[in-house]
Amino acid sequence: MGVTGAVGTEFLKILEERNFEMASLKLLASIRSAGKKLACRGEELPVEELTEESFGDVDLVLASAGGGVSKKFAPAAVTAGAVVVDNTSAFRMDPDVPLVVPEVNAEDIKTHNGIIANPNCSTIVMNVPVWPLHKVNPVRRIIVSTYQAVSGAGAKAMAELEAGARAQLEGKEFTPRELPHPAAFNVFSHDSEIGEDGYNVEERKMILETRKIFHCPGILITATCVRVPVMRAHSESINLQFSNPITDREKNYFPMPLDASGQDDILVGRIRQDLSQPDGRGIEMFVSGDQIRKGAALNAVQIAELL
Amino acid sequence: MGVTGAVGTEFLKILEERNFEMASLKLLASIRSAGKKLACRGEELPVEELTEESFGDVDLVLASAGGGVSKKFAPAAVTAGAVVVDNTSAFRMDPDVPLVVPEVNAEDIKTHNGIIANPNCSTIVMNVPVWPLHKVNPVRRIIVSTYQAVSGAGAKAMAELEAGARAQLEGKEFTPRELPHPAAFNVFSHDSEIGEDGYNVEERKMILETRKIFHCPGILITATCVRVPVMRAHSESINLQFSNPITDREKNYFPMPLDASGQDDILVGRIRQDLSQPDGRGIEMFVSGDQIRKGAALNAVQIAELL
Repeated sequence: MGVTGAVGTEFLKILEERNFEMASLKLLASIRSAGKKLACRGEELPVEELTEESFGDVDLVLASAGGGVSKKFAPAAVTAGAVVVDNTSAFRMDPDVPLVVPEVNAEDIKTHNGIIANPNCSTIVMNVPVWPLHKVNPVRRIIVSTYQAVSGAGAKAMAELEAGARAQLEGKEFTPRELPHPAAFNVFSHDSEIGEDGYNVEERKMILETRKIFHCPGILITATCVRVPVMRAHSESINLQFSNPITDREKNYFPMPLDASGQDDILVGRIRQDLSQPDGRGIEMFVSGDQIRKGAALNAVQIAELL
Repeated sequence: MGVTGAVGTEFLKILEERNFEMASLKLLASIRSAGKKLACRGEELPVEELTEESFGDVDLVLASAGGGVSKKFAPAAVTAGAVVVDNTSAFRMDPDVPLVVPEVNAEDIKTHNGIIANPNCSTIVMNVPVWPLHKVNPVRRIIVSTYQAVSGAGAKAMAELEAGARAQLEGKEFTPRELPHPAAFNVFSHDSEIGEDGYNVEERKMILETRKIFHCPGILITATCVRVPVMRAHSESINLQFSNPITDREKNYFPMPLDASGQDDILVGRIRQDLSQPDGRGIEMFVSGDQIRKGAALNAVQIAELL
């Protein structure tokens, strides 16, 4: 579902790369894309219009066509006997739906009732490196500031960053349409709605989803989500407060989004003891992970593989 | 001193804009630039070679030619009877040299012995908005992540960001020379040396300089300094822990570097109560200020005006 978007296209790549076992593959999208052909495993497959009748012969649905589309069509898929791995925010906080990062809470997959939710990209990029630390020394508080790629706003936003950069280099006027502000040579607040408490939706997702994935409702988290003019990997400056002193420090490699792009791994570096926690219970680190791969399509395919 | 650099050029603009009182103006730079002509107040003035004999008739020196140059020439200027406002890091942590942000510690100017130091740009951008809060509710801990413009690495780095962006848009190879990594469509660690504890020099400056400027050696600070592909304004995500609960919250305007560029003010927004400090003693905010103006040249001219 949503096969023609930035994440949908990545799904096809990853299914092919990982040689995902399947008897047949059905490409679903809105009527606008129906008839278009896309390649997977050397085959050209037609895109079909997504309807409530699409799921008769389907075992597994990888959904990435927006929250509204998932809310409308996921129940029909489940009724038809399919399991839906949903990349949207539609069901993430539903207590009956497991929210899974395979490296963290793979076990939760077993509790599904037809739908398994894939977390927000920034949440995944933070959860993968923080979880192994949390297991040996429970994390009490996380303070994170993000450096998010425009890919999170879709393929059109990526094209807009390029067009805006080109216009600025040529000294031309440029009015953004996909993003709320000029992205090239600028930094701006994540383009999600801001709530009464001043946090935007993306920040709230990082806080609430991490608590659910970690099974740790008491973990203190604050997040500031910022877009930077980067194409596809999200980076995050993470400050951690642990329950007990922590002293290990690793090499000072700085994980750059240009390096993380196209990789499955979340890169971690700049790990150092937090000088502002004199009790020795804090570390600072910087991480970067491909938002479209591990932050979206790859994580969902990993869930499907475990399933 | 150093009039042909990014900050030197800005000095001329600001002296003109603020109608700074002066009988005459002498432009000093290295021998490479001697003879070149620069405009200020409608006059074309020649750039003269900086030597130890440059200061005979000089009352005030605005220095921005690098730490080594200041270390070598500032003592000669002081001996000749001039006061040096130094934009480099050469004397900032010297206990005999006041380190001044006029909005914070203007009084310290009085204690000078010939040299007054201008703080690091990221320090200034953080100190201006945090100080008025600190006065009413002492700040205990600051956790800051920066989004720094390439202008901090000089005019050549700014040209390199443009050239790198142009190359990437045209699908061409590009090897950076001024900066350690490709700047366009990327994010990387501030290009200053990393110490044994894992903090880089820029991060250390933000910590130590703030303590000196605030006259508050016990304030806990941690910083992560990151370069983003922005031309000239530095932005910072700042998390504060106060001594007492703090509840005021202002509008959710996000201060963008494109807006802050060319402005004297440090823009502040995204002010909100920190959800990870349940005792109500924390706020989050995002700030942006022109690194070349308030972060360097303007702050030094303000010091000179007070002097």
